[in-house]
Amino acid sequence: MSSVWSNRITISIFGESHGSAIGVTIDNLPAGEYIDMPEIVKFMSRRAARNKKISTARQEPDIPTILSGVYKDRTTGTPLCAIINNTNTHSADYSSISKLARPGHADYTGALRYNGFNDNRGGGHFSGRLTAPLCFAGAVCAQILERRGIYTGAHILSIKDVRDNRYSPLGITREHLISIRNKKFPVINDEKGEKMIETICAAKDAKDSVGGIIECIATGVPAGIGSPIFNGLENSISQIMFGIPAVKGIEFGAGFDCTTLMGSENNDEFYVNGEGHVVTKTNNHGGILGGISSGMPIICNVAFKPTPSIALQQDTVDYSAMKNEHINIKGRHDPCIVPRAVPCVEAAMNIAIMSHMLDYPNF
Amino acid sequence: MSSVWSNRITISIFGESHGSAIGVTIDNLPAGEYIDMPEIVKFMSRRAARNKKISTARQEPDIPTILSGVYKDRTTGTPLCAIINNTNTHSADYSSISKLARPGHADYTGALRYNGFNDNRGGGHFSGRLTAPLCFAGAVCAQILERRGIYTGAHILSIKDVRDNRYSPLGITREHLISIRNKKFPVINDEKGEKMIETICAAKDAKDSVGGIIECIATGVPAGIGSPIFNGLENSISQIMFGIPAVKGIEFGAGFDCTTLMGSENNDEFYVNGEGHVVTKTNNHGGILGGISSGMPIICNVAFKPTPSIALQQDTVDYSAMKNEHINIKGRHDPCIVPRAVPCVEAAMNIAIMSHMLDYPNF
Amino acid sequence: MSSVWSNRITISIFGESHGSAIGVTIDNLPAGEYIDMPEIVKFMSRRAARNKKISTARQEPDIPTILSGVYKDRTTGTPLCAIINNTNTHSADYSSISKLARPGHADYTGALRYNGFNDNRGGGHFSGRLTAPLCFAGAVCAQILERRGIYTGAHILSIKDVRDNRYSPLGITREHLISIRNKKFPVINDEKGEKMIETICAAKDAKDSVGGIIECIATGVPAGIGSPIFNGLENSISQIMFGIPAVKGIEFGAGFDCTTLMGSENNDEFYVNGEGHVVTKTNNHGGILGGISSGMPIICNVAFKPTPSIALQQDTVDYSAMKNEHINIKGRHDPCIVPRAVPCVEAAMNIAIMSHMLDYPNF
Amino acid sequence: MSSVWSNRITISIFGESHGSAIGVTIDNLPAGEYIDMPEIVKFMSRRAARNKKISTARQEPDIPTILSGVYKDRTTGTPLCAIINNTNTHSADYSSISKLARPGHADYTGALRYNGFNDNRGGGHFSGRLTAPLCFAGAVCAQILERRGIYTGAHILSIKDVRDNRYSPLGITREHLISIRNKKFPVINDEKGEKMIETICAAKDAKDSVGGIIECIATGVPAGIGSPIFNGLENSISQIMFGIPAVKGIEFGAGFDCTTLMGSENNDEFYVNGEGHVVTKTNNHGGILGGISSGMPIICNVAFKPTPSIALQQDTVDYSAMKNEHINIKGRHDPCIVPRAVPCVEAAMNIAIMSHMLDYPNF
Repeated sequence: MSSVWSNRITISIFGESHGSAIGVTIDNLPAGEYIDMPEIVKFMSRRAARNKKISTARQEPDIPTILSGVYKDRTTGTPLCAIINNTNTHSADYSSISKLARPGHADYTGALRYNGFNDNRGGGHFSGRLTAPLCFAGAVCAQILERRGIYTGAHILSIKDVRDNRYSPLGITREHLISIRNKKFPVINDEKGEKMIETICAAKDAKDSVGGIIECIATGVPAGIGSPIFNGLENSISQIMFGIPAVKGIEFGAGFDCTTLMGSENNDEFYVNGEGHVVTKTNNHGGILGGISSGMPIICNVAFKPTPSIALQQDTVDYSAMKNEHINIKGRHDPCIVPRAVPCVEAAMNIAIMSHMLDYPNF
Repeated sequence: MSSVWSNRITISIFGESHGSAIGVTIDNLPAGEYIDMPEIVKFMSRRAARNKKISTARQEPDIPTILSGVYKDRTTGTPLCAIINNTNTHSADYSSISKLARPGHADYTGALRYNGFNDNRGGGHFSGRLTAPLCFAGAVCAQILERRGIYTGAHILSIKDVRDNRYSPLGITREHLISIRNKKFPVINDEKGEKMIETICAAKDAKDSVGGIIECIATGVPAGIGSPIFNGLENSISQIMFGIPAVKGIEFGAGFDCTTLMGSENNDEFYVNGEGHVVTKTNNHGGILGGISSGMPIICNVAFKPTPSIALQQDTVDYSAMKNEHINIKGRHDPCIVPRAVPCVEAAMNIAIMSHMLDYPNF
Repeated sequence: MSSVWSNRITISIFGESHGSAIGVTIDNLPAGEYIDMPEIVKFMSRRAARNKKISTARQEPDIPTILSGVYKDRTTGTPLCAIINNTNTHSADYSSISKLARPGHADYTGALRYNGFNDNRGGGHFSGRLTAPLCFAGAVCAQILERRGIYTGAHILSIKDVRDNRYSPLGITREHLISIRNKKFPVINDEKGEKMIETICAAKDAKDSVGGIIECIATGVPAGIGSPIFNGLENSISQIMFGIPAVKGIEFGAGFDCTTLMGSENNDEFYVNGEGHVVTKTNNHGGILGGISSGMPIICNVAFKPTPSIALQQDTVDYSAMKNEHINIKGRHDPCIVPRAVPCVEAAMNIAIMSHMLDYPNF
Repeated sequence: MSSVWSNRITISIFGESHGSAIGVTIDNLPAGEYIDMPEIVKFMSRRAARNKKISTARQEPDIPTILSGVYKDRTTGTPLCAIINNTNTHSADYSSISKLARPGHADYTGALRYNGFNDNRGGGHFSGRLTAPLCFAGAVCAQILERRGIYTGAHILSIKDVRDNRYSPLGITREHLISIRNKKFPVINDEKGEKMIETICAAKDAKDSVGGIIECIATGVPAGIGSPIFNGLENSISQIMFGIPAVKGIEFGAGFDCTTLMGSENNDEFYVNGEGHVVTKTNNHGGILGGISSGMPIICNVAFKPTPSIALQQDTVDYSAMKNEHINIKGRHDPCIVPRAVPCVEAAMNIAIMSHMLDYPNF
C-alpha cells in the first residue's frame, strides 16, 4: 500500500495537493484520550511558513476538521479521521510545466508508476503538502505520549554547511526541547541560526535552494519498547521518516560518525545511576540497542535535500514527447524546506513511538 | 511482529544463535523460478569469514536445507522455507557473562523486552547469525531478479577512516559489480583494501574493533517501481536494512552530503539519451524519486558500528542484581563485521526490490 | 486494526452514525479507471430504504463526496477517499437509552472494549450506517471488475421461513443478475417476494423484526485467483462479510447442505465443454476449490439475524449502574434489514474479488 | 500472502504433503509461557486417525520438533518455529493421477494459480496434512489461554444426516468440554456417535464419503475482546477456519437458524446475575456482539464437505491435455475427515482468540 503505515496503529494518508482536501485516518488509538485541538493546530502551524524572508510558500490556515473518532473531546477508540481542505490552489502556476519532468521531483517516476493518470498538479500525492496530515497524526500521538512522560523535539542541526551546536546526547530534558520548539527558527545557538537564515536568503537571491539536517530527540521513552530484526524502533522510524518528501538519509545516535570510532569509543558503558536506574555513560547508540529502547534519549538525524523546485532554468525532458527541453519553474517555492520540515520529523517520530508504546505493559 | 517483513513478499525469520536451527520462510515468490542451490550456498558463504587474519568468528558451513516451496529445482509458488542447523555452538564461552549487559549489545534491552525469558546465549534472536537466513532469502531473490536484468552488488566503502574510491554513480554495470563481488576483500581500489585490512588487524591487536560503511548498488531496476509516502523504495530498503544488527544509518544517493549542495547542484537533470531512454546527467537521487525508481542505478550507503564485542575490559551492570560490574568478553568475535556484512546488505536490497518488482506490469 | 481490511487493496472505514461524516479510503486501486459517479450513487441508493411499507429508516441521500484519488473522472492510483455527510441525525431518539444495553446490539460489548469512551449515539462506529462507505468501495470495485467481464449480483434468498427459488448454480449470467438487481424487491420469484414483504409487514405490525438470507453470485471470475490456506477467496470474502452488522453465518456453494451429501454427490465432476473450457457438471463447490476460483460462478449465502432494534419492551441491564432494567427502543428502525443489505453483500464480494484480481496476470 | 495469517500474532505455515517437512512459525507470542510438549503431542495426536474402522489414512507419529522460540521449556517471545517431518509418503499412489484433476480437490485450480509448478503430490500445500502445523500452533495457544481461564472444545455435531444433541449454549463448562475431548469419538450422545460411525462405515463400504458439522465452543473468554467492522472475532475466526481444507461454511450462535426467528426470539436479553455479572438469558449471539466478546460462551459451527477423494470412478479432465477422462483415485483416504478435523477447528479458534486476547488489558 502506498500510503498506509501499519503497525500497532495504522496511519492512512490520502489527498492530492490541488484536490479538494487531504487527510488522514488513524486506527487503533487508545480510547478516552483528551484531544486538545488548539495544541494540534499550534503543532501544525509550525509546518506553515513562519518567516516570510525565507519562505514564499503558500499560506494556508491548515485547520484540520475531525470527522470521526473524537467524541466530547476524547478519542473514541474507533478510527480518527481528519481532513484539511485545500483552499489556496493556484493550478495555473503549474499548467505550463505539466509535461516537463521537474528535476528532483517525482513527476517522471510518478507518471510511469501510474501510467500518467496521477494528479500531477503541484506534485499531487507526492507533494510536501501531504505532510500536513502526517503532522496532524503526529500531533495527536504527541499529546497521548506526553501524558506518559514522553516528549519529542526536533530542531535544525544544519543548513548547507552551517552547523548548529549539539546537545549532549545524555542530559537532554523536556524543557530544553520545549524552549527550542518555541523559537521562530528552532536551533540551539541563535547566532548559528542567523547564519543559516542568511544562507537560505542567499540561495533565494540566487534563484537556488539549500538543504540541511534535522535532529530529532525523544525523551522519556521507557526502556524495553521495540523488537528485534524487522520491527525495531529504527526500522519503524526510518520507514515513516522516508515518507517525508526530500528525506535522503537517516542515522541514529552517532550514526555514520560511529563508523570512524573504535569499538571501545563507540560502546556505551552501562552503569547504575544514583536513582538506581541503568543508564549509559555516553549515548552513541541513540537510545536504541537491538531495535529496542534503552531508556536513554532516542536520537536521530534526518537529511533533507535542497528544495528541488528552483527558479533557475534547468535541462529536462518532456516525458510525453520523449524529447529534451528546458524548464523554468514558476510558482511559490521555499528556498529551503528544512525549517518547515521540523514538525514533520517530530510527527514521524511520535507516530513510531506511539505505535510501539502500545506493546508496553500497562501503557 | 518482530521478525516478519511483509510487503508483496513476506519474509519470516526465526531462530536463536544457539538453538537447534535458524531459518526463514518466504511467502509469495513467483512460481516456476529455477533455484540454483550452489549459487545460493556461494552467496551465503560470502557471509562466512574468508580471511582468517581479520576474522576469528566461528566457521560453520551454513548449508541451508530447503524444507518446502521448491520442487524439481523450481519454486512452487507456495511458501519456501529453509533452515540452517546450528552445529558449532560454544555456549560455555557465554555462560560467564549471562547476567552482565555487554555494552553495545541488546542483552539489557532484550531482557527487558522479554522479561528475561529470551534465549540470550550468543545474543539469541538478536545475534548477527540471524543474517544467515536473511542472506538465503536475498540470494533467492537475486536469482529471480537477475533473470529480469537486475543485479545488485555491495562493497566496502570505508573501514574506520580509510575510504575507498567510489564508482561513478552513472555508469555502473553488472560486470563492475561482479568483478568486485569475486574479490576476497570486496573493494574497488585494492590498495585501499590493504589499508583497511591493516586497520582491522590493528584493532584486533588492540583488543578493539572498528566499523565502516558499505555501499550497495542495484542496476537494471526498471523505472516506475515503488510508491509514494510509506511504501517507497527508500522506506522498504531502510526498514529491512535496519534488520541487520549494527546498522546505525542509511542514505540514498548523495545522502547526507546532498545537504551541503545547492539545489542546482543536487538536482539531477533529465535527458533523452542516444538510445531514446530518459536518464539523468548525475545521480544524486540514487535512482529513487518520490519513492519510485527512475531507471538510474539505485545507490545506498549503510553505516555499521564497530563490533560491540571487544576483548578490552569494560564497565557495565549486572542487570539482574542491578549493580555495577566489569566485563571481559571472551569467545570468538570479529574485530570488524563489515566484510561479512556485505552480502547481508545485498540481500536486504534484493528482498526489497524483489517485493516491489511484483507490482511491475508483466513482471 | 478494527476498521482496516488489508489485502492487495486496503479499505479503511471511518465514522460514527451521528458524527459529522463517515467515509472510506481505498488504497492501491489501479490507475486510470473511469469512475462513473451516477452509477455509484445508484449502487448506494439501493442501500437506502426503497419501500416505505417495510422501512421506517432514516432517508438520507447518501451522496458521496470524493476527496482524493480521482482526477478527470479517472482513478489516479493514489488513495481514493470519499466521505458521506451525516445530515439527518436524531440524537434525541437515542438519549433515553444511552446507558441501557440494547439486546442484540454492541452497546454493552462496545462500552467494555472502549472503556465507555466510544460514541454510542445510534450505534456509533458499530452502526449499520457504516455500510454506506463499504457500498461506496464496493461500487467502485464493481465498475473496475465489470470492465474485465466480472459481474456480481445479490438477491434475497429468504425472509424468515419464506424461501425464494434458486438459480441453477451453473447457468447464471450477468443478464439474470442485472434483471434482479433492477427489481424494487430483489428476488427471483416475485410471488415469493410478495410473501416476504407480507412477513416483514407482519413483523412490523407486531413491533417485532425478522431476518433472512442473501445469496450472492459473482460471474466471470477467471479460474486461478485466490490462494491456499489463509488467503483464499473464502477467507477474504468471509472476513469482509462479517464486517456487515447482523451477519451471523456464511456458506459457499452447497455450504451446510453439502454436509448431508455423499462425496459422489457433492464432488463436481470436471469436463471440457464445447468451447474448450474446463467446467464442472454441478457447482456444489461454489466456484472455489482450495481457496482458488475454478471459473464457475462464485456463490455464497449470508445469514442476517432479525433487526435487533424492536419496539417491544425487553429486559436488559443498565451497564453503568449494573442493575436490571427494561428497555423500550424508540426511533426509526427497519423491521428487516435484509432488503437494504443486498448491495452491502455485493460490495463485500466485489472488494474481495477486486483485491484478488490484482494478482491475476495481465489484469 | 497465501499462508500467513497476521493479526496480533502471526502464523506462517509452510510445507507440502510429500516434501521433507511441514511446519509453522508463530510470531509475537508472549514471553515466559511454559510449553508442555507432551500436551501438544497429545493435542496433535487427536488429528491422527484414532479409529481404524473409519480411517485408512496414513499413520504418522507427527511429532513436532521445535527449532526456535522455546528455551528452558518457556517461550522466549521471539518467533517459535516447529517442524514436522514427513516420513510416510507414498508418492507412487499419486503418480498415476498427476495430470487428472481430482474432483473436489484443488489440483486444477492450483495448477492454474501456480502455472503448473506447484508440488501436487498428495495435494502439496493444499493437503489436509498442512493442518498439522495449524494444530501445533493452536495447541500452543490453548496452553497459554488455559492459564487465563479460557478453554476451547470442539465436537462432532453431525455426520451426514445423523445429528448429535447440543449443549445448552448457556451453561457449558470447561469440564463438559474436557469430558468430550477425551472420548475416542467426540460427541455428546454416544448412541448418536455410534450411528455416525455406522454412517461413515457405510460410506466407506460404498467407496464413497460423507461430511458433517463440527461445533466449537470457547468458554471463559472475557467480555470486551475483538473489534468492530473488519477485526471482529467472527472475521478472524472465519478467516482462519476457511484455512482448513473442506470447510464450506461457518455460523456463529444461532447462525443460519436465526434467520427464521423473530427479533424478539433471537435477541438475547441481558441481566445481572447473582454474582453481579452481566450475562444473557439465551445465547443466540454465540458470545459475540459487534465483533466483540460478550462474556458468554463463544459458539460456532463449521461445515465440512464429504472427503473429495473417493474410490468410485469419476469423470474428470486431464488439464494438461485438455481432454475428458475418467479417474480412479487410489491410495489412503478417510471416508470422512470430520473426526480428524475436530482438533483443527479448536486450533483455529484458539489462534484467533489468543491473538485478540493480546489486546486485553492486563493480559
